[in-house]
Amino acid sequence: MKNSAILLNKRPVGRPTMEDFKFVEQEVPAIKDGEFLLKTLYVSVDPYLRGRMIDAKSYVPPFQLNEPMSSGVIAEVIESKNPKFKIGTFVSGYLDWKEYNVSTGAGLTPVDPNAASITAYLGILGMTGLTAYLGLKNIGSPKQGETLVVSGAAGAVGSVVGQIGKIMGCKVIGIAGTDEKVALLKDKFGFDEGINYKTTDNMTKAIQAAAPNGVDIYFDNVGGDISDAVMFNLNRLARVVVCGSISGYNDTERSVGPRMQWKLISTSSLMKGFTIGDYANEFPHGMETLTTWLAEGKLAYTETIVKGFDQIPQAFLDLFDGKNEGKMIVKI
Amino acid sequence: MKNSAILLNKRPVGRPTMEDFKFVEQEVPAIKDGEFLLKTLYVSVDPYLRGRMIDAKSYVPPFQLNEPMSSGVIAEVIESKNPKFKIGTFVSGYLDWKEYNVSTGAGLTPVDPNAASITAYLGILGMTGLTAYLGLKNIGSPKQGETLVVSGAAGAVGSVVGQIGKIMGCKVIGIAGTDEKVALLKDKFGFDEGINYKTTDNMTKAIQAAAPNGVDIYFDNVGGDISDAVMFNLNRLARVVVCGSISGYNDTERSVGPRMQWKLISTSSLMKGFTIGDYANEFPHGMETLTTWLAEGKLAYTETIVKGFDQIPQAFLDLFDGKNEGKMIVKI
Repeated sequence: MKNSAILLNKRPVGRPTMEDFKFVEQEVPAIKDGEFLLKTLYVSVDPYLRGRMIDAKSYVPPFQLNEPMSSGVIAEVIESKNPKFKIGTFVSGYLDWKEYNVSTGAGLTPVDPNAASITAYLGILGMTGLTAYLGLKNIGSPKQGETLVVSGAAGAVGSVVGQIGKIMGCKVIGIAGTDEKVALLKDKFGFDEGINYKTTDNMTKAIQAAAPNGVDIYFDNVGGDISDAVMFNLNRLARVVVCGSISGYNDTERSVGPRMQWKLISTSSLMKGFTIGDYANEFPHGMETLTTWLAEGKLAYTETIVKGFDQIPQAFLDLFDGKNEGKMIVKI
Repeated sequence: MKNSAILLNKRPVGRPTMEDFKFVEQEVPAIKDGEFLLKTLYVSVDPYLRGRMIDAKSYVPPFQLNEPMSSGVIAEVIESKNPKFKIGTFVSGYLDWKEYNVSTGAGLTPVDPNAASITAYLGILGMTGLTAYLGLKNIGSPKQGETLVVSGAAGAVGSVVGQIGKIMGCKVIGIAGTDEKVALLKDKFGFDEGINYKTTDNMTKAIQAAAPNGVDIYFDNVGGDISDAVMFNLNRLARVVVCGSISGYNDTERSVGPRMQWKLISTSSLMKGFTIGDYANEFPHGMETLTTWLAEGKLAYTETIVKGFDQIPQAFLDLFDGKNEGKMIVKI
């Protein structure tokens, strides 16, 4: 049986292009005892994958040249020599960008397609939701009545962060890049205020106007000058969850901006990098909380679903133009 | 009785000059019931006072134009109508830059001139020592075997931070601006390594060479490009105590440098601004710990003592040239 796979062809310099990826045809190997064969159903593409395309030490190891790319995937067991993973079982986990993967089950979690839409396990009930919940809770420490600003607010993580901020009693202000996204923040996700950074001249003043009492928590998905503007508005004892920095992922030179030490000192504020892997012991509690909120109708989510295995690289590239609303997923 | 006082004459733009200060002669008022008269003996000058000379919201209120400057002072009671503060008592506290101050005792602490050198209460047993100890302990959280880098290492706070780092089992690397200071770090304060940033071309590489296992804790007294270089060497789960930013206190334009969000994310590191006032409930425990270490000979300190009331402004200005070794004090 033929198996399409997508390999890392080149390490991107600046913005990734289609030439950084290579499509190859392979044979699906026969499964051995203890193994099973998975048919890929949905593939998650995420900004953090950009970091893994370069050869640098980070919290996840880099992709290797001429080896498959990988990310969060939902797949179905279609052949099995492993009694724990019967044919017809759906699983979620990190898998190679291949139409079919062979697995022993290590690192995979069975998912129940009846409990929620199956794609939710790539988003709100997956790493996306856990990132939003555990980052906001552990670093942001939201308290009733505080003001929370979220950048990349219409994105997969940002939209969940804002909703959880509302559940926790915060005033929530979202920053996004189109009027449609800003409308979505307020209409669908219940944000109190939205700011379109592309049509705003002075972001520092716009944030000040939206947050007249100052910013207590900043959940940062973007970095760059948007983050500078938010940080100029930090209150005393503010907390900055540094979760993503998409504005700089494709930079070939180090991004420069105002140094923030003076602001951290004058407000006794905290900035901390958030990496989901540091909070693995909280995943069960996080999943339970998110599942409950979702069932209670307290969490909405959006997905941008693109169709076709060959569309995976383009869907990834489109993230850097903000073409997604919410979680970007490729349906195979 | 005549009383010299030093007022804020102008708000400095950029580097402060003598013209920002004004000397005036006043009359010493007669003391009322409950009050006492203090003769100023020693005045502490500190970089943070620069921040109070401008009219900006910060963790301490700004000085007012044509009103006295103030700072940490050691004084002696020379007249008293307050039974709790008898003639001959020595006190430490925040007092105006005047030869004589009238007080009710609010905010003043009696100090024992026999327990330690009286100037120690402005330094190692005062705000300086408490800043070093409480900042390192609460934000730096040092653990045995970790690597600690201290900037402004030969300064009043930095030299204490390094010694406490050694007490707590860290490898300690200090950054200072003259070869004499670097020698002092190793010979007097027991640092493992010292780097003269003024004679080092590539600070990032120099720190990497001194800290081959990376930097777990950075106690930052200076900000600017020295801090950039240290932060490029942060380990996973590193902690940055942002205590001072002397390199930028006189900037008229916002200092710019590499944005550090990517580094915080890729290492899950933390930066937090430290302000001594946030830890007031730990002062008694901190004083006890520092007094014990000092008595046990575990802490050394240096002072630069300048003589004359009229020398207070110049001593303050000299801080920005690094003319002090350790605590800068003016003896009246």
